[in-house]
Amino acid sequence: MAKRKDNTSPAITKRIKERDAKTLGKLVGLAQSVSKSALSGREPKVEIPTRTKSNTLWNKKRGILEMGDASSDRELFNLNQAKQFMQTMLHASTIKDLIEREKTSSLRGVFYKAKHTVAGTKENTFDRQEESDPILEDLEVTLGSLREELHVFAENRGSMVGNITVTDKGDDIDCRRMGSGGYAMPSIVEPDIIQFKKCEAKFVLHVEKGTVWNRFNEDRFWEEHNCILTHGAGQPPRGCRRLLQRLNQELKLPIICLLDCDPWGHYIYSVIKQGSISLAFESSRLAIPEARFLGIRAKDYDECDLGDSVKIDLTENDIKRANEIAAYPWFESNKQWQREIKGMLDNGFKMEVESLITKDISYVTEEYVPQRLKAKDWLE
Amino acid sequence: MAKRKDNTSPAITKRIKERDAKTLGKLVGLAQSVSKSALSGREPKVEIPTRTKSNTLWNKKRGILEMGDASSDRELFNLNQAKQFMQTMLHASTIKDLIEREKTSSLRGVFYKAKHTVAGTKENTFDRQEESDPILEDLEVTLGSLREELHVFAENRGSMVGNITVTDKGDDIDCRRMGSGGYAMPSIVEPDIIQFKKCEAKFVLHVEKGTVWNRFNEDRFWEEHNCILTHGAGQPPRGCRRLLQRLNQELKLPIICLLDCDPWGHYIYSVIKQGSISLAFESSRLAIPEARFLGIRAKDYDECDLGDSVKIDLTENDIKRANEIAAYPWFESNKQWQREIKGMLDNGFKMEVESLITKDISYVTEEYVPQRLKAKDWLE
Repeated sequence: MAKRKDNTSPAITKRIKERDAKTLGKLVGLAQSVSKSALSGREPKVEIPTRTKSNTLWNKKRGILEMGDASSDRELFNLNQAKQFMQTMLHASTIKDLIEREKTSSLRGVFYKAKHTVAGTKENTFDRQEESDPILEDLEVTLGSLREELHVFAENRGSMVGNITVTDKGDDIDCRRMGSGGYAMPSIVEPDIIQFKKCEAKFVLHVEKGTVWNRFNEDRFWEEHNCILTHGAGQPPRGCRRLLQRLNQELKLPIICLLDCDPWGHYIYSVIKQGSISLAFESSRLAIPEARFLGIRAKDYDECDLGDSVKIDLTENDIKRANEIAAYPWFESNKQWQREIKGMLDNGFKMEVESLITKDISYVTEEYVPQRLKAKDWLE
Repeated sequence: MAKRKDNTSPAITKRIKERDAKTLGKLVGLAQSVSKSALSGREPKVEIPTRTKSNTLWNKKRGILEMGDASSDRELFNLNQAKQFMQTMLHASTIKDLIEREKTSSLRGVFYKAKHTVAGTKENTFDRQEESDPILEDLEVTLGSLREELHVFAENRGSMVGNITVTDKGDDIDCRRMGSGGYAMPSIVEPDIIQFKKCEAKFVLHVEKGTVWNRFNEDRFWEEHNCILTHGAGQPPRGCRRLLQRLNQELKLPIICLLDCDPWGHYIYSVIKQGSISLAFESSRLAIPEARFLGIRAKDYDECDLGDSVKIDLTENDIKRANEIAAYPWFESNKQWQREIKGMLDNGFKMEVESLITKDISYVTEEYVPQRLKAKDWLE
C-alpha cells in the first residue's frame, strides 16, 4: 500500500494524527455501544440528532442558524429503521477504513463502497446516491465531526488570487503569482490541510461567478486594493465557505460579497452569512455573520444611471422566492434588507453583476466597487 | 484607465501586440468592405462560412472534423438578415474595443455590451444570450480568428497538477507544488498567456471529474508515474481542450483519458479527439487525434472481477446515444470502438470510474491505471 508522500510538515502530520485518532475514537465508541447492547440482549440502536427545519433555530446573538436538541433513535429491530440502521453502520465502517488508511473519498465513492446486494437476498444496501448522502450527514451530527473530518469530500469549485500565501499539504502557494488561472480551492480546507502563511490583504472580495472573477483578476484589482479575490462558481461549495470563514475568523478579514441583484444572489449571501437549514449543524464552522453584501443593489439602476438593457424581468417564481427570503428571521428583522428586497420587487426586474459592462468594460472594477468600498456602502 | 500590470515579459507583450494588431486589421478590413459597398451604392453584406452539419467534413487523414467551403451572404437590405447583420456589426465593434483596450470579456459581457433598444423603435438588438453566442462564432469563422484571439472567454473549469512548470501572464506556476487544490486552468490558454517552462512529465492523464482527480492527486500518482494530471469537470471546456492539445503538439506528450464507460464518457473522448460539429472550424486548434481512451472499458466487469454494485442500467436514451456515437465516421471505421460500444450494449449497463472503489480505495491509482499503462491497453 503506497503511503502519501506529500510535503506536509511533521508538526501538521502530528496534528492530523491526533484529530484522526479522536474521530476514530468516536467511531469505535459508536460501534461498541451497539455491540454492547446486542451482547447484553438489549436492542441495538443509535441516537441521531434531528436535521429538520423544525429542529433548526435562529441564534440571533451569534447570528447563525443552529440545530436544536431534538434527536431520535434508529433501531435495528424496527422494520422502518432496520435498513437505515444497517446503512449507518456500513458508512461508519467505510469511514473507519478511510481514516485508518489516511485516505479521503468523494461522496460518490462512499456510496459505491457501501453499495451491494445483501447476501442471500435481492435487497440492495443502497440503490441511489440520494439515499447515501443523508446517512453521511447523520453520521456527522451523531459523531459531532464535520464531513471533512470523516475524510469525505465533494467537488472542488472556485478559485483564489490575492495578497496571501497559503500552505496546502506543505506546498507554499503564493496567490500573488497565480497568473490568469488562480489557485483552485480544494474541497477540504481544514487547518491540517491549509495554513495561512503570509497575508497582507485587508479584506476578501467574494464574487459569484468565475467570469466576473476573471474581470477583477485581469484588472489586478486585488493588487491595487490589497485584497484576496475569490469566487465559488455560483452557490459556493462547503470548501469555499469554510475557507472564507477561516480567513474571516483567523485573519480578521472582512468578507465582502459581490452578487447578482436577484433572489439567487440574495440566497447565496444568506447561506454565506447565516448558514443553510440542511447544514445547520455545521453553521458554526461555515457561517460568517459579519459577511457584507456590496451589490448589485436595487437602487443601482438609478444611482449608476444604467440603461434598460440591464433589466431582466422578475418571473413569478422569483417573486415567490424573494418573499420567502424576506421572511427569513435574519432578513425579517433587518430593515435594510427589507428595503432592498422591496426595492427589487418594486423595480420589477433583476440585475446581474455582468450587466455593469454596459457602462464600461472595467466600470465594475474601477468605479463601482472602489466607490462603494470607500463609502462603506453595503448591506450587513 | 488602468493598464494591466501583470508580470508578462516584454517579449511576450510584443507578441500579443503583433497578434492583436493582426486581428484588428481583419476587423477593420471587414468594416471597410461594408462601408465601401455602402458608399459606392452597392448592398452592404458580409460573407459568412456555414457552420452546419452538412458543411462539416471528416478529414480521415488528419483525423479531425473540419469545416467545408460553403458560405452565405448576410445582407443589410434583406428583411430576414438585417437584424443579424446589425448584430454582427455590433459584436465586431465590441471586439475592436476589447482589443484596443487590452481587455477580455465573457460571452455574457459581450451580450450585455451589445444589448439595447434601437433608438426610436421598440426593437432590441438582442433579447437573449442564445442569440448572441452564435453571432460571435460567425465572427470567429469570418475573421478566421479564434474566440480567444477576439478577447472573449467562457467559464474557467478544470485543474492541473504534475511535473511541469507553466508561465501564466509572467507568473511561474510550479504544478509540482500545488497542494491538494491545484492550478485552476484559465479559459484562455493561448501561447501569449501560457508558456511551458519546464516539463519532465512523459504523458498527461486526463480524468473526467474533479472527485477522481482528487483521488489521483492525493495518491501523488503524477509523482510516481511522472505525468501531468488534469480534469475538465465533465465535458472539458475549450480552455482545457486547448491546453491538452498544446501539451500534445508542443511537448509531444501522449494524452491518456480515463472516462466513464457510458455514452457521455465516449462522447467526451470523441470531442477531445476529433472535435465537435458545432466547433468544427476550430478543430485544428482543439482536437487531439492521438488521444487515447484507457478506460473504463466494457470488459472491465469481468476482467477486474467487479461486483454487481458497479452496474448502472442503460436507459433507452443511453442506447440511442450509443448507437449514434457508434455511427460517427471515426468510430464507424474503427473496429476496436465498434467492439467497445457493442460490449457496453451487450452488458446492458454502464460503469463509472468511481465504482472501482468497490475493489479498494486506491485500486484505480495503484492497480487499474498502472497495469493498463504498462500493457498499453487502450483504445485509439
